[in-house]
Amino acid sequence: MSYLRHLEACNRFDPDRFLPLLLAGRRVGFVRRDRAGALAAFPRIFHVSTDGIAFDDGLDGADAVTTALHEVTDGLIRAGHTDKRRQEMFAVTDGWGGTLLFELDRGAVPFFGTRSYGVHLNGWRPGFDGPDLWIGKRAKDKKIAPGQLDNLVAGGMGAGYGARETLLKEAAEEADMPEALAARAHAVGAVRYRMELPDGMRDDVLFLYDIETPVDFVPRNTDGEIEDFRLLSARECLRRVRETDDFKFNVNLVLVDFGLRHGLIVPEDADYLPLVEGLRGSLVRGGR
Amino acid sequence: MSYLRHLEACNRFDPDRFLPLLLAGRRVGFVRRDRAGALAAFPRIFHVSTDGIAFDDGLDGADAVTTALHEVTDGLIRAGHTDKRRQEMFAVTDGWGGTLLFELDRGAVPFFGTRSYGVHLNGWRPGFDGPDLWIGKRAKDKKIAPGQLDNLVAGGMGAGYGARETLLKEAAEEADMPEALAARAHAVGAVRYRMELPDGMRDDVLFLYDIETPVDFVPRNTDGEIEDFRLLSARECLRRVRETDDFKFNVNLVLVDFGLRHGLIVPEDADYLPLVEGLRGSLVRGGR
Repeated sequence: MSYLRHLEACNRFDPDRFLPLLLAGRRVGFVRRDRAGALAAFPRIFHVSTDGIAFDDGLDGADAVTTALHEVTDGLIRAGHTDKRRQEMFAVTDGWGGTLLFELDRGAVPFFGTRSYGVHLNGWRPGFDGPDLWIGKRAKDKKIAPGQLDNLVAGGMGAGYGARETLLKEAAEEADMPEALAARAHAVGAVRYRMELPDGMRDDVLFLYDIETPVDFVPRNTDGEIEDFRLLSARECLRRVRETDDFKFNVNLVLVDFGLRHGLIVPEDADYLPLVEGLRGSLVRGGR
Repeated sequence: MSYLRHLEACNRFDPDRFLPLLLAGRRVGFVRRDRAGALAAFPRIFHVSTDGIAFDDGLDGADAVTTALHEVTDGLIRAGHTDKRRQEMFAVTDGWGGTLLFELDRGAVPFFGTRSYGVHLNGWRPGFDGPDLWIGKRAKDKKIAPGQLDNLVAGGMGAGYGARETLLKEAAEEADMPEALAARAHAVGAVRYRMELPDGMRDDVLFLYDIETPVDFVPRNTDGEIEDFRLLSARECLRRVRETDDFKFNVNLVLVDFGLRHGLIVPEDADYLPLVEGLRGSLVRGGR
Protein backbone atom coordinates (compact mmCIF):
# COMPACT_ATOMS: atom_id res chain seq x y z
CA MET A 1 0.00 0.00 0.00
CA SER A 2 1.27 3.48 -0.69
CA TYR A 3 0.42 7.15 -0.47
CA LEU A 4 0.64 7.46 -4.24
CA ARG A 5 -2.45 5.30 -4.90
CA HIS A 6 -4.64 8.08 -3.45
CA LEU A 7 -3.11 10.68 -5.79
CA GLU A 8 -3.71 8.29 -8.68
CA ALA A 9 -7.30 7.65 -7.57
CA CYS A 10 -8.00 11.39 -7.35
CA ASN A 11 -6.61 11.87 -10.86
CA ARG A 12 -8.50 9.04 -12.55
CA PHE A 13 -9.80 11.03 -15.49
CA ASP A 14 -9.72 10.10 -19.16
CA PRO A 15 -10.21 13.27 -21.27
CA ASP A 16 -11.17 11.09 -24.26
CA ARG A 17 -14.42 10.15 -22.50
CA PHE A 18 -15.36 13.84 -22.22
CA LEU A 19 -16.15 16.77 -24.51
CA PRO A 20 -14.75 20.20 -23.68
CA LEU A 21 -17.38 22.74 -22.65
CA LEU A 22 -16.51 25.97 -24.45
CA LEU A 23 -17.47 29.56 -23.69
CA ALA A 24 -16.31 32.13 -26.27
CA GLY A 25 -13.68 29.63 -27.45
CA ARG A 26 -12.28 28.95 -23.98
CA ARG A 27 -12.63 25.56 -22.27
CA VAL A 28 -14.53 26.01 -19.02
CA GLY A 29 -15.62 22.43 -18.25
CA PHE A 30 -15.81 18.78 -19.32
CA VAL A 31 -19.05 16.93 -20.12
CA ARG A 32 -19.17 13.17 -20.57
CA ARG A 33 -19.58 12.34 -24.28
CA ASP A 34 -22.41 9.90 -23.63
CA ARG A 35 -24.36 12.69 -21.88
CA ALA A 36 -23.85 15.44 -24.44
CA GLY A 37 -27.24 14.57 -25.91
CA ALA A 38 -28.90 15.95 -22.78
CA LEU A 39 -27.56 19.40 -23.75
CA ALA A 40 -28.54 19.06 -27.41
CA ALA A 41 -32.10 19.45 -26.09
CA PHE A 42 -31.28 23.16 -25.49
CA PRO A 43 -30.30 24.37 -29.00
CA ARG A 44 -30.66 28.07 -28.08
CA ILE A 45 -28.02 27.57 -25.36
CA PHE A 46 -25.63 24.88 -26.58
CA HIS A 47 -24.14 23.79 -29.89
CA VAL A 48 -23.10 20.16 -29.54
CA SER A 49 -20.60 18.69 -31.98
CA THR A 50 -18.15 15.80 -31.89
CA ASP A 51 -15.40 18.29 -30.96
CA GLY A 52 -17.07 20.01 -28.06
CA ILE A 53 -20.07 21.71 -26.58
CA ALA A 54 -20.13 25.46 -27.18
CA PHE A 55 -22.32 28.00 -25.44
CA ASP A 56 -24.32 30.05 -27.95
CA ASP A 57 -22.51 33.28 -28.78
CA GLY A 58 -25.74 35.19 -28.20
CA LEU A 59 -25.52 34.60 -24.44
CA ASP A 60 -24.09 37.93 -23.45
CA GLY A 61 -22.47 38.19 -20.06
CA ALA A 62 -22.37 36.20 -16.84
CA ASP A 63 -26.02 36.85 -15.92
CA ALA A 64 -27.32 35.54 -19.24
CA VAL A 65 -25.24 32.35 -18.97
CA THR A 66 -26.24 31.86 -15.33
CA THR A 67 -29.95 32.24 -16.17
CA ALA A 68 -29.66 29.83 -19.08
CA LEU A 69 -27.90 27.25 -16.87
CA HIS A 70 -30.67 27.53 -14.30
CA GLU A 71 -33.14 26.30 -16.93
CA VAL A 72 -30.73 23.58 -18.08
CA THR A 73 -30.16 22.37 -14.52
CA ASP A 74 -33.93 21.85 -14.13
CA GLY A 75 -33.83 19.72 -17.27
CA LEU A 76 -30.84 17.71 -16.04
CA ILE A 77 -32.60 16.98 -12.76
CA ARG A 78 -35.75 15.87 -14.61
CA ALA A 79 -33.65 13.63 -16.86
CA GLY A 80 -31.87 12.12 -13.86
CA HIS A 81 -28.41 13.36 -14.87
CA THR A 82 -28.15 15.54 -11.79
CA ASP A 83 -29.44 14.48 -8.41
CA LYS A 84 -30.88 17.76 -7.12
CA ARG A 85 -30.12 21.41 -6.54
CA ARG A 86 -27.72 21.99 -3.64
CA GLN A 87 -29.13 25.55 -3.29
CA GLU A 88 -25.57 26.87 -3.26
CA MET A 89 -24.11 28.66 -6.26
CA PHE A 90 -20.49 28.09 -7.35
CA ALA A 91 -18.69 30.73 -9.39
CA VAL A 92 -16.95 29.70 -12.61
CA THR A 93 -14.19 32.20 -13.35
CA ASP A 94 -11.54 32.94 -15.90
CA GLY A 95 -8.88 31.30 -13.68
CA TRP A 96 -8.35 31.76 -9.93
CA GLY A 97 -8.94 35.40 -9.06
CA GLY A 98 -10.16 36.06 -12.62
CA THR A 99 -13.44 37.54 -13.83
CA LEU A 100 -16.75 35.76 -13.27
CA LEU A 101 -17.94 33.80 -16.32
CA PHE A 102 -21.14 32.39 -14.77
CA GLU A 103 -22.60 30.82 -11.66
CA LEU A 104 -23.90 27.28 -11.40
CA ASP A 105 -25.76 25.33 -8.72
CA ARG A 106 -23.27 23.14 -6.88
CA GLY A 107 -25.37 20.06 -7.67
CA ALA A 108 -24.77 20.54 -11.41
CA VAL A 109 -21.02 21.19 -11.14
CA PRO A 110 -20.00 17.53 -11.68
CA PHE A 111 -22.20 17.27 -14.80
CA PHE A 112 -20.51 20.29 -16.38
CA GLY A 113 -17.04 19.53 -14.98
CA THR A 114 -16.29 23.15 -14.18
CA ARG A 115 -13.37 24.05 -11.92
CA SER A 116 -14.29 24.39 -8.28
CA TYR A 117 -12.36 25.61 -5.28
CA GLY A 118 -12.48 24.56 -1.66
CA VAL A 119 -10.65 24.99 1.64
CA HIS A 120 -9.35 22.35 4.07
CA LEU A 121 -8.01 23.11 7.53
CA ASN A 122 -5.56 20.88 9.40
CA GLY A 123 -6.13 21.48 13.12
CA TRP A 124 -3.19 20.16 15.12
CA ARG A 125 -1.51 20.42 18.49
CA PRO A 126 1.78 19.02 19.80
CA GLY A 127 1.58 15.36 20.77
CA PHE A 128 4.04 12.86 22.22
CA ASP A 129 5.24 11.76 18.79
CA GLY A 130 4.99 14.88 16.64
CA PRO A 131 1.70 16.66 15.92
CA ASP A 132 -1.74 15.28 16.77
CA LEU A 133 -4.50 16.13 14.29
CA TRP A 134 -8.17 16.85 14.92
CA ILE A 135 -10.05 14.42 12.68
CA GLY A 136 -13.80 14.46 12.06
CA LYS A 137 -16.02 11.47 11.30
CA ARG A 138 -18.49 12.41 8.58
CA ALA A 139 -22.18 11.90 9.28
CA LYS A 140 -23.67 8.66 7.93
CA ASP A 141 -26.32 10.54 5.94
CA LYS A 142 -23.78 12.53 3.85
CA LYS A 143 -24.17 11.78 0.15
CA ILE A 144 -20.43 11.83 -0.40
CA ALA A 145 -18.13 9.67 1.73
CA PRO A 146 -20.62 8.92 4.57
CA GLY A 147 -18.93 7.75 7.77
CA GLN A 148 -15.44 8.42 6.44
CA LEU A 149 -12.81 10.53 8.20
CA ASP A 150 -12.26 14.20 7.36
CA ASN A 151 -10.17 17.25 8.27
CA LEU A 152 -11.18 19.54 11.15
CA VAL A 153 -12.80 21.90 8.63
CA ALA A 154 -13.48 21.51 4.90
CA GLY A 155 -15.84 23.16 2.48
CA GLY A 156 -16.50 24.26 -1.05
CA MET A 157 -16.16 27.91 -1.99
CA GLY A 158 -19.54 29.42 -2.82
CA ALA A 159 -19.99 32.28 -5.28
CA GLY A 160 -19.07 35.59 -3.65
CA TYR A 161 -16.86 34.03 -0.96
CA GLY A 162 -13.06 34.22 -0.96
CA ALA A 163 -10.76 31.50 0.35
CA ARG A 164 -10.27 33.01 3.81
CA GLU A 165 -13.96 33.95 4.15
CA THR A 166 -14.96 30.38 3.33
CA LEU A 167 -12.49 29.10 5.90
CA LEU A 168 -13.88 31.30 8.69
CA LYS A 169 -17.50 30.51 7.77
CA GLU A 170 -16.89 26.74 7.65
CA ALA A 171 -14.77 26.82 10.83
CA ALA A 172 -17.75 28.30 12.67
CA GLU A 173 -20.32 25.89 11.13
CA GLU A 174 -18.32 22.69 11.12
CA ALA A 175 -16.20 22.98 14.25
CA ASP A 176 -17.80 25.79 16.33
CA MET A 177 -14.51 27.63 16.14
CA PRO A 178 -14.66 31.27 17.35
CA GLU A 179 -13.58 33.66 14.61
CA ALA A 180 -10.72 34.99 16.77
CA LEU A 181 -9.30 31.47 16.93
CA ALA A 182 -9.97 30.52 13.29
CA ALA A 183 -8.22 33.73 12.23
CA ARG A 184 -4.95 32.24 13.52
CA ALA A 185 -5.05 29.65 10.73
CA HIS A 186 -2.44 30.31 8.06
CA ALA A 187 -2.34 29.35 4.40
CA VAL A 188 0.12 26.53 3.59
CA GLY A 189 -0.44 25.84 -0.13
CA ALA A 190 -2.90 24.08 -2.40
CA VAL A 191 -3.53 20.68 -3.97
CA ARG A 192 -5.13 19.95 -7.29
CA TYR A 193 -6.78 16.93 -8.93
CA ARG A 194 -9.19 16.02 -11.70
CA MET A 195 -11.29 12.86 -11.29
CA GLU A 196 -14.24 11.14 -12.91
CA LEU A 197 -17.22 10.42 -10.67
CA PRO A 198 -20.53 8.65 -11.39
CA ASP A 199 -22.28 12.01 -11.88
CA GLY A 200 -19.55 13.56 -14.06
CA MET A 201 -16.15 14.83 -12.95
CA ARG A 202 -14.45 17.08 -10.44
CA ASP A 203 -11.77 19.60 -11.36
CA ASP A 204 -10.82 20.68 -7.86
CA VAL A 205 -8.34 23.02 -6.26
CA LEU A 206 -8.17 22.88 -2.47
CA PHE A 207 -6.54 25.73 -0.59
CA LEU A 208 -4.92 24.34 2.54
CA TYR A 209 -4.53 25.90 5.98
CA ASP A 210 -2.90 24.79 9.23
CA ILE A 211 -3.86 25.90 12.70
CA GLU A 212 -2.22 24.97 16.01
CA THR A 213 -5.22 24.75 18.33
CA PRO A 214 -4.91 25.60 22.05
CA VAL A 215 -5.29 22.74 24.56
CA ASP A 216 -8.64 24.06 25.76
CA PHE A 217 -10.20 23.98 22.28
CA VAL A 218 -12.46 21.03 21.50
CA PRO A 219 -14.29 21.16 18.17
CA ARG A 220 -18.05 20.68 18.12
CA ASN A 221 -20.01 20.29 14.90
CA THR A 222 -23.02 22.58 14.51
CA ASP A 223 -24.32 21.78 11.01
CA GLY A 224 -24.85 18.03 11.33
CA GLU A 225 -22.15 17.17 8.79
CA ILE A 226 -19.69 15.69 11.29
CA GLU A 227 -20.69 13.05 13.82
CA ASP A 228 -17.67 13.26 16.08
CA PHE A 229 -14.15 14.69 16.34
CA ARG A 230 -11.11 12.84 17.72
CA LEU A 231 -7.43 13.65 18.15
CA LEU A 232 -5.24 11.22 16.24
CA SER A 233 -1.46 11.44 15.94
CA ALA A 234 -0.42 12.60 12.49
CA ARG A 235 1.74 9.47 12.18
CA GLU A 236 -1.31 7.28 12.84
CA CYS A 237 -3.30 9.31 10.29
CA LEU A 238 -0.58 8.72 7.71
CA ARG A 239 -0.46 4.99 8.52
CA ARG A 240 -4.20 4.86 7.83
CA VAL A 241 -3.73 6.84 4.62
CA ARG A 242 -1.17 4.27 3.46
CA GLU A 243 -2.95 1.15 4.59
CA THR A 244 -6.70 1.89 4.61
CA ASP A 245 -9.44 3.83 2.91
CA ASP A 246 -10.71 5.31 6.18
CA PHE A 247 -10.35 8.90 4.93
CA LYS A 248 -12.51 10.64 2.34
CA PHE A 249 -10.75 10.46 -1.05
CA ASN A 250 -9.38 14.02 -1.18
CA VAL A 251 -8.54 14.20 2.53
CA ASN A 252 -5.80 11.64 1.87
CA LEU A 253 -4.11 14.25 -0.35
CA VAL A 254 -4.41 16.94 2.33
CA LEU A 255 -2.81 14.60 4.88
CA VAL A 256 0.02 13.61 2.53
CA ASP A 257 0.68 17.31 2.01
CA PHE A 258 0.69 17.81 5.82
CA GLY A 259 3.15 14.92 6.16
CA LEU A 260 5.45 16.38 3.50
CA ARG A 261 5.48 19.82 5.13
CA HIS A 262 5.94 18.54 8.69
CA GLY A 263 8.78 16.10 7.98
CA LEU A 264 6.66 12.97 8.48
CA ILE A 265 7.24 11.90 4.88
CA VAL A 266 10.92 12.37 4.01
CA PRO A 267 13.11 12.51 0.88
CA GLU A 268 14.41 9.03 1.70
CA ASP A 269 10.97 7.73 0.59
CA ALA A 270 11.38 6.64 -3.06
CA ASP A 271 7.96 8.16 -3.88
CA TYR A 272 8.89 11.57 -2.44
CA LEU A 273 9.13 13.51 -5.71
CA PRO A 274 6.07 11.89 -7.35
CA LEU A 275 4.14 12.83 -4.19
CA VAL A 276 5.43 16.43 -4.10
CA GLU A 277 4.67 16.94 -7.79
CA GLY A 278 1.51 14.82 -7.92
CA LEU A 279 -0.23 16.97 -5.31
CA ARG A 280 0.44 20.02 -7.49
CA GLY A 281 -1.08 18.82 -10.72
CA SER A 282 1.58 16.62 -12.39
CA LEU A 283 -1.00 13.80 -12.67
CA VAL A 284 -3.78 16.04 -14.02
CA ARG A 285 -4.91 15.12 -17.55
CA GLY A 286 -6.76 17.16 -20.15
CA GLY A 287 -4.70 20.35 -20.29
CA ARG A 288 -4.96 23.52 -18.21
CA MET B 1 7.74 43.12 -9.89
CA SER B 2 6.53 39.69 -8.88
CA TYR B 3 7.54 36.38 -7.34
CA LEU B 4 6.70 34.59 -10.55
CA ARG B 5 9.54 36.19 -12.55
CA HIS B 6 12.05 34.14 -10.48
CA LEU B 7 10.26 30.89 -11.27
CA GLU B 8 10.26 31.87 -14.94
CA ALA B 9 13.97 32.78 -14.80
CA CYS B 10 14.84 29.43 -13.20
CA ASN B 11 12.89 27.62 -15.94
CA ARG B 12 14.35 29.45 -18.92
CA PHE B 13 15.24 26.40 -20.97
CA ASP B 14 14.51 25.75 -24.63
CA PRO B 15 14.75 22.00 -25.31
CA ASP B 16 15.12 22.71 -29.05
CA ARG B 17 18.59 24.16 -28.40
CA PHE B 18 19.68 20.88 -26.80
CA LEU B 19 20.18 17.26 -27.81
CA PRO B 20 19.07 14.51 -25.46
CA LEU B 21 21.92 12.50 -23.92
CA LEU B 22 20.87 8.86 -24.09
CA LEU B 23 22.07 5.85 -22.11
CA ALA B 24 20.59 2.52 -23.18
CA GLY B 25 17.72 4.41 -24.84
CA ARG B 26 16.89 6.47 -21.75
CA ARG B 27 17.39 10.26 -21.64
CA VAL B 28 19.84 11.09 -18.86
CA GLY B 29 20.91 14.64 -19.81
CA PHE B 30 20.78 17.54 -22.26
CA VAL B 31 23.80 18.78 -24.29
CA ARG B 32 23.69 22.02 -26.23
CA ARG B 33 23.44 21.26 -29.97
CA ASP B 34 26.27 23.63 -30.83
CA ARG B 35 28.58 21.74 -28.46
CA ALA B 36 27.74 18.21 -29.56
CA GLY B 37 30.81 18.27 -31.81
CA ALA B 38 33.01 18.22 -28.71
CA LEU B 39 31.65 14.75 -27.95
CA ALA B 40 32.00 13.52 -31.55
CA ALA B 41 35.74 13.57 -30.82
CA PHE B 42 35.15 10.46 -28.65
CA PRO B 43 33.63 7.97 -31.12
CA ARG B 44 34.26 4.95 -28.84
CA ILE B 45 32.12 6.60 -26.17
CA PHE B 46 29.45 8.65 -27.97
CA HIS B 47 27.41 8.35 -31.14
CA VAL B 48 26.32 11.84 -32.11
CA SER B 49 23.38 12.31 -34.47
CA THR B 50 20.89 15.08 -35.15
CA ASP B 51 18.41 13.27 -32.87
CA GLY B 52 20.61 12.83 -29.85
CA ILE B 53 23.88 11.75 -28.32
CA ALA B 54 23.96 8.09 -27.36
CA PHE B 55 26.49 6.40 -25.13
CA ASP B 56 28.13 3.44 -26.89
CA ASP B 57 26.32 0.21 -26.02
CA GLY B 58 29.65 -1.42 -25.26
CA LEU B 59 30.08 0.64 -22.11
CA ASP B 60 28.94 -1.95 -19.63
CA GLY B 61 27.92 -0.75 -16.20
CA ALA B 62 28.30 2.37 -14.10
CA ASP B 63 32.05 1.99 -13.59
CA ALA B 64 32.75 1.82 -17.34
CA VAL B 65 30.63 4.93 -18.05
CA THR B 66 32.19 6.82 -15.14
CA THR B 67 35.73 5.99 -16.35
CA ALA B 68 34.86 7.04 -19.91
CA LEU B 69 33.43 10.34 -18.68
CA HIS B 70 36.60 11.02 -16.69
CA GLU B 71 38.53 10.99 -19.97
CA VAL B 72 35.87 13.11 -21.72
CA THR B 73 35.85 15.67 -18.90
CA ASP B 74 39.61 16.17 -19.40
CA GLY B 75 38.93 16.85 -23.06
CA LEU B 76 36.11 19.29 -22.28
CA ILE B 77 38.37 21.24 -19.91
CA ARG B 78 41.13 21.39 -22.55
CA ALA B 79 38.61 22.58 -25.15
CA GLY B 80 37.31 25.25 -22.75
CA HIS B 81 33.75 23.83 -22.58
CA THR B 82 34.09 23.08 -18.88
CA ASP B 83 35.87 25.36 -16.46
CA LYS B 84 37.63 22.85 -14.21
CA ARG B 85 37.09 19.78 -12.11
CA ARG B 86 35.27 20.49 -8.86
CA GLN B 87 36.84 17.34 -7.35
CA GLU B 88 33.38 16.29 -6.20
CA MET B 89 31.50 13.50 -7.92
CA PHE B 90 27.73 13.70 -8.52
CA ALA B 91 25.70 10.53 -8.98
CA VAL B 92 23.43 10.21 -12.01
CA THR B 93 20.67 7.74 -11.19
CA ASP B 94 17.65 6.14 -12.74
CA GLY B 95 15.34 8.64 -10.98
CA TRP B 96 15.47 9.76 -7.32
CA GLY B 97 16.32 6.75 -5.17
CA GLY B 98 16.97 4.68 -8.32
CA THR B 99 20.04 2.69 -9.36
CA LEU B 100 23.33 4.42 -10.12
CA LEU B 101 23.92 4.94 -13.86
CA PHE B 102 27.28 6.74 -13.58
CA GLU B 103 29.19 9.37 -11.64
CA LEU B 104 30.39 12.68 -13.06
CA ASP B 105 32.61 15.47 -11.75
CA ARG B 106 30.38 18.31 -10.56
CA GLY B 107 32.21 20.74 -12.87
CA ALA B 108 31.01 18.80 -15.95
CA VAL B 109 27.38 18.45 -14.81
CA PRO B 110 26.15 21.61 -16.62
CA PHE B 111 27.78 20.52 -19.90
CA PHE B 112 25.96 17.17 -19.80
CA GLY B 113 22.77 18.55 -18.28
CA THR B 114 22.28 15.60 -15.96
CA ARG B 115 19.80 15.80 -13.08
CA SER B 116 21.33 16.93 -9.82
CA TYR B 117 19.99 17.10 -6.30
CA GLY B 118 20.67 19.53 -3.51
CA VAL B 119 19.43 20.53 -0.06
CA HIS B 120 18.45 23.98 1.28
CA LEU B 121 17.75 24.74 4.92
CA ASN B 122 15.58 27.63 6.12
CA GLY B 123 16.78 28.55 9.61
CA TRP B 124 14.15 30.68 11.36
CA ARG B 125 13.07 31.85 14.78
CA PRO B 126 10.01 33.79 15.94
CA GLY B 127 10.23 37.52 15.29
CA PHE B 128 7.98 40.47 16.01
CA ASP B 129 6.18 40.14 12.67
CA GLY B 130 6.18 36.42 11.94
CA PRO B 131 9.34 34.38 11.47
CA ASP B 132 12.84 35.85 11.10
CA LEU B 133 15.17 33.97 8.75
CA TRP B 134 18.92 33.43 8.99
CA ILE B 135 20.30 34.69 5.69
CA GLY B 136 23.91 34.27 4.53
CA LYS B 137 25.85 36.60 2.26
CA ARG B 138 27.87 34.55 -0.23
CA ALA B 139 31.59 35.17 -0.42
CA LYS B 140 32.74 37.55 -3.18
CA ASP B 141 35.08 34.91 -4.67
CA LYS B 142 32.29 32.35 -5.30
CA LYS B 143 32.03 31.50 -8.99
CA ILE B 144 28.24 31.39 -8.85
CA ALA B 145 26.26 34.32 -7.42
CA PRO B 146 29.17 36.07 -5.59
CA GLY B 147 27.99 38.49 -2.90
CA GLN B 148 24.36 37.44 -3.24
CA LEU B 149 22.13 36.33 -0.38
CA ASP B 150 21.59 32.66 0.45
CA ASN B 151 19.81 30.33 2.84
CA LEU B 152 21.34 29.34 6.19
CA VAL B 153 22.62 26.12 4.62
CA ALA B 154 22.63 24.93 0.99
CA GLY B 155 24.63 22.35 -0.89
CA GLY B 156 24.72 19.89 -3.74
CA MET B 157 24.36 16.21 -3.05
CA GLY B 158 27.61 14.36 -3.76
CA ALA B 159 27.73 10.74 -4.89
CA GLY B 160 27.23 8.41 -1.91
CA TYR B 161 25.44 10.98 0.23
CA GLY B 162 21.71 10.95 0.95
CA ALA B 163 19.57 14.07 1.39
CA ARG B 164 19.72 14.09 5.20
CA GLU B 165 23.44 13.24 5.27
CA THR B 166 24.16 16.14 2.92
CA LEU B 167 22.10 18.44 5.12
CA LEU B 168 24.00 17.49 8.31
CA LYS B 169 27.40 17.73 6.55
CA GLU B 170 26.65 21.14 5.02
CA ALA B 171 25.08 22.45 8.25
CA ALA B 172 28.38 21.73 10.01
CA GLU B 173 30.57 23.21 7.24
CA GLU B 174 28.49 26.22 6.27
CA ALA B 175 26.93 27.28 9.56
CA ASP B 176 28.96 25.50 12.29
CA MET B 177 25.75 23.85 13.41
CA PRO B 178 26.23 21.02 15.92
CA GLU B 179 24.81 17.75 14.64
CA ALA B 180 22.38 17.51 17.59
CA LEU B 181 20.90 20.86 16.54
CA ALA B 182 20.90 20.23 12.77
CA ALA B 183 19.13 16.92 13.41
CA ARG B 184 16.07 18.93 14.51
CA ALA B 185 15.60 20.16 10.93
CA HIS B 186 12.61 18.56 9.24
CA ALA B 187 11.86 17.96 5.57
CA VAL B 188 9.21 20.30 4.12
CA GLY B 189 9.11 19.43 0.41
CA ALA B 190 11.10 20.01 -2.76
CA VAL B 191 11.31 22.47 -5.65
CA ARG B 192 12.31 21.72 -9.21
CA TYR B 193 13.56 23.76 -12.18
CA ARG B 194 15.44 23.39 -15.46
CA MET B 195 17.46 26.37 -16.69
CA GLU B 196 20.04 27.19 -19.33
CA LEU B 197 23.35 28.63 -18.10
CA PRO B 198 26.42 29.83 -20.01
CA ASP B 199 28.17 26.49 -19.40
CA GLY B 200 25.17 24.32 -20.28
CA MET B 201 22.06 23.72 -18.20
CA ARG B 202 20.88 22.73 -14.76
CA ASP B 203 18.18 20.15 -14.12
CA ASP B 204 17.86 20.61 -10.37
CA VAL B 205 15.77 19.23 -7.57
CA LEU B 206 16.23 20.90 -4.20
CA PHE B 207 15.04 19.11 -1.08
CA LEU B 208 13.92 21.70 1.45
CA TYR B 209 14.15 21.68 5.23
CA ASP B 210 13.06 24.07 7.97
CA ILE B 211 14.63 24.43 11.40
CA GLU B 212 13.53 26.66 14.26
CA THR B 213 16.87 27.71 15.76
CA PRO B 214 17.22 28.43 19.49
CA VAL B 215 17.90 32.04 20.54
CA ASP B 216 21.46 31.22 21.59
CA PHE B 217 22.41 29.83 18.17
CA VAL B 218 24.39 32.13 15.89
CA PRO B 219 25.64 30.62 12.64
CA ARG B 220 29.33 30.87 11.78
CA ASN B 221 30.70 29.87 8.39
CA THR B 222 33.68 27.51 8.48
CA ASP B 223 34.34 26.78 4.79
CA GLY B 224 34.80 30.31 3.45
CA GLU B 225 31.68 30.17 1.28
CA ILE B 226 29.62 32.63 3.34
CA GLU B 227 30.93 36.02 4.40
CA ASP B 228 28.34 36.85 7.00
CA PHE B 229 24.97 35.77 8.43
CA ARG B 230 22.15 38.13 9.42
CA LEU B 231 18.62 37.71 10.76
CA LEU B 232 16.05 39.22 8.41
CA SER B 233 12.29 39.04 8.86
CA ALA B 234 10.72 36.61 6.41
CA ARG B 235 8.43 39.43 5.23
CA GLU B 236 11.46 41.59 4.40
CA CYS B 237 13.07 38.63 2.61
CA LEU B 238 9.94 38.23 0.49
CA ARG B 239 9.83 41.96 -0.26
CA ARG B 240 13.39 41.67 -1.56
CA VAL B 241 12.46 38.58 -3.56
CA ARG B 242 9.64 40.53 -5.21
CA GLU B 243 11.49 43.80 -5.77
CA THR B 244 15.20 42.99 -6.08
CA ASP B 245 17.70 40.42 -7.28
CA ASP B 246 19.54 40.34 -3.96
CA PHE B 247 19.09 36.59 -3.56
CA LYS B 248 20.86 33.86 -5.54
CA PHE B 249 18.56 32.73 -8.37
CA ASN B 250 17.33 29.46 -6.82
CA VAL B 251 17.11 30.84 -3.27
CA ASN B 252 14.21 33.01 -4.45
CA LEU B 253 12.29 29.78 -5.11
CA VAL B 254 13.11 28.40 -1.66
CA LEU B 255 11.88 31.63 -0.04
CA VAL B 256 8.67 31.69 -2.08
CA ASP B 257 8.06 28.10 -0.93
CA PHE B 258 8.70 29.19 2.68
CA GLY B 259 6.25 32.07 2.23
CA LEU B 260 3.60 29.73 0.83
CA ARG B 261 3.96 27.25 3.68
CA HIS B 262 4.04 29.87 6.43
CA GLY B 263 1.03 31.92 5.30
CA LEU B 264 3.11 34.91 4.12
CA ILE B 265 1.87 34.45 0.55
CA VAL B 266 -1.88 33.79 0.57
CA PRO B 267 -4.55 32.48 -1.81
CA GLU B 268 -5.83 36.04 -2.26
CA ASP B 269 -2.66 36.65 -4.38
CA ALA B 270 -3.72 36.18 -8.04
CA ASP B 271 -0.41 34.34 -8.73
CA TYR B 272 -0.98 31.86 -5.90
CA LEU B 273 -1.69 28.77 -8.00
CA PRO B 274 1.00 29.46 -10.65
CA LEU B 275 3.45 29.82 -7.74
CA VAL B 276 2.33 26.63 -6.00
CA GLU B 277 2.48 24.63 -9.24
CA GLY B 278 5.50 26.41 -10.75
CA LEU B 279 7.72 25.42 -7.82
CA ARG B 280 6.82 21.78 -8.43
CA GLY B 281 7.72 21.52 -12.07
CA SER B 282 4.75 22.95 -14.02
CA LEU B 283 7.14 25.31 -15.85
CA VAL B 284 9.74 22.63 -16.61
CA ARG B 285 10.22 21.98 -20.33
CA GLY B 286 11.71 19.00 -22.16
CA GLY B 287 9.73 16.09 -20.65
CA ARG B 288 10.43 14.04 -17.54
